[in-house]
Amino acid sequence: MKNKDGMYYVPAQKKAAKVCAAGDFIFSAAGLDHGHIYGMVSGLINAGATLKYVYDPDPAKVAAFLKTFPTAVPASREAQVLDDKEAQLVASACVTSERCALGLKVMDSGKHYFADKAPLTTLEQLESAQKKVIATDKKYAVYYSERLHVESAVLAGMMIKDGVIGQVLQVIGLGPHRLNAPTRPAWFFEKEKYGGILCDIGSHQIEQYLYFAGEEDAQVVRSQIANYKNPAHPGLDDFGDAMLVGQNGTTNYFRVDWFTPDALRTWGDGRTMILGTDGYIEIRKYADIGTDGGADTVLLVNHETEKKMSAAGTVGFPFFGELILDCLNHTERAMTQAHAFKAAELCIKAQLQAVRIGPEIRDGGL
Amino acid sequence: MKNKDGMYYVPAQKKAAKVCAAGDFIFSAAGLDHGHIYGMVSGLINAGATLKYVYDPDPAKVAAFLKTFPTAVPASREAQVLDDKEAQLVASACVTSERCALGLKVMDSGKHYFADKAPLTTLEQLESAQKKVIATDKKYAVYYSERLHVESAVLAGMMIKDGVIGQVLQVIGLGPHRLNAPTRPAWFFEKEKYGGILCDIGSHQIEQYLYFAGEEDAQVVRSQIANYKNPAHPGLDDFGDAMLVGQNGTTNYFRVDWFTPDALRTWGDGRTMILGTDGYIEIRKYADIGTDGGADTVLLVNHETEKKMSAAGTVGFPFFGELILDCLNHTERAMTQAHAFKAAELCIKAQLQAVRIGPEIRDGGL
Repeated sequence: MKNKDGMYYVPAQKKAAKVCAAGDFIFSAAGLDHGHIYGMVSGLINAGATLKYVYDPDPAKVAAFLKTFPTAVPASREAQVLDDKEAQLVASACVTSERCALGLKVMDSGKHYFADKAPLTTLEQLESAQKKVIATDKKYAVYYSERLHVESAVLAGMMIKDGVIGQVLQVIGLGPHRLNAPTRPAWFFEKEKYGGILCDIGSHQIEQYLYFAGEEDAQVVRSQIANYKNPAHPGLDDFGDAMLVGQNGTTNYFRVDWFTPDALRTWGDGRTMILGTDGYIEIRKYADIGTDGGADTVLLVNHETEKKMSAAGTVGFPFFGELILDCLNHTERAMTQAHAFKAAELCIKAQLQAVRIGPEIRDGGL
Repeated sequence: MKNKDGMYYVPAQKKAAKVCAAGDFIFSAAGLDHGHIYGMVSGLINAGATLKYVYDPDPAKVAAFLKTFPTAVPASREAQVLDDKEAQLVASACVTSERCALGLKVMDSGKHYFADKAPLTTLEQLESAQKKVIATDKKYAVYYSERLHVESAVLAGMMIKDGVIGQVLQVIGLGPHRLNAPTRPAWFFEKEKYGGILCDIGSHQIEQYLYFAGEEDAQVVRSQIANYKNPAHPGLDDFGDAMLVGQNGTTNYFRVDWFTPDALRTWGDGRTMILGTDGYIEIRKYADIGTDGGADTVLLVNHETEKKMSAAGTVGFPFFGELILDCLNHTERAMTQAHAFKAAELCIKAQLQAVRIGPEIRDGGL
């Protein structure tokens, strides 16, 4: 994909082609609590999957969903989705703490499961999910959207695999988000439901670290949470950060927060900085602030070049087609189960170990 | 300095004016081991100080210095600088581990001391310096150049004081440097002399954190060092990072390294990202990579604006004039002694506490 001048050819295949014919891979959607379900469903459909049922206990959510996906069949009960023998996968963005319980039922029904991130919120859930995957031989796939559904992150991953920055030493991730508290449902502020900030939006960061650094395991060596500015929502962590060390000696630092200011053009100035032995890459995922440049900016500096690239419209989102093929062919090209679960495990551990910081420590000292 | 649209006026006083007449403030330079001495001396001269003696045991270093500062008088012995009754300050960029010993002699001779960063390398040196400052009533000032002598950092500090991002919550600093190993003197690779990476180039980062966050004290909660790619120089840390928590509950993460790749236009892509309750600032100190933009780029996003600014030629470097006036007037406007020493203390502690990471942990596990 790279010539010797470090220039990237735009791949001939700009967007993920449909990997199967209509009806070859059928799935349903159940649990529409998080808007990510729209990205999950459209990603699968664009890659060739056929949407069958949609289910949510809230008719308003179903009605809204049907406006975007009018061919979906509203199911009257969850059991209708589970008992269906045609669908091969169920996608869900239900409340985070309930994702695992649904997944167990989905796998027991003989289907693969595709959960929004974070895929689960406790180590007990993780253990039950791991056992169920083995028992049923089904997948518990996860929508780590900030890498899988962001073209600049996909391109950066390809560049790293091509060796343009040598061996990866460190990944720094910044994941600021806009709070917009009045628009959020109640469960968004209940820690046992969303899992805490390091488990919730931190899961993207840890998944990216493991992926870009090629690490299969890591240790959370420090993690912190705070509620700096939202006393009305005591269950909210509005800030969190963590340091990890991988088993191969690479490191990770990430910060996540709910402090995106009003004037930013988008919901968050997500960045990833990947340091290698022979160069570095910066991803400006959703905005190249202070310029007219939009999303999906990738910057590369190595021994040959210092350049800015737009990834928009180049490499597409191969994850979805690969996931469909993995389900059909019993492979693991999209993402290994071990990787999906390791990211989940580490974000739960980061949250469990987190030291609470913030203004309240003024009284108690450090 | 700011109007209500968040626009910054270019200050009328673009560069630091001379704060005193020729001969009002005389200083000498002793110890030319680090090139920072050129910035220290020119900063003082531009602010009105008069250079008298230059001393270094190496005649070649003195000869080179005289090419830039031809009015300096070469001293034949260090004692000539110390015994001089005219100079009020001695500036030094001698070997890091020797800076304190020289400083004690300078203060004993009745002069202020202006050391390159890091100003000292051990907690024992720190204690002796603190005692000497009290005993002599002289200053042990420090050239934390990456904030004091970088216009974008000076401008960012003014913006933060103006409250444009609300209350500072966190400072992230990236301080990559180009190694250029063949050009470095032997002491550069001897840890007891340069102090380790967190003490050496990490000192800039900790000083910036304390300054931008308005913290008077902090705790190093995690620090790491590695030698990833320089086995021929086992005393070199080519990577280091750390997390700090301030006594007011703000946090800091910084990474320093010697991995600047060849194609970068300058020695390092130094960045500072300052998160506040109501916005954030990014400083791209030495390059705005992938653009024609040069050094001193400041980006501001808050509730009113998302913009990129050039700080070049705007605010100058007020530190030097303030330091001269502080010496003349017995004030602490440039930097408090407590702040200069606290940054030094924390960078030594970060180094002392550092966990060694890197490829070698593959054998020993985490």
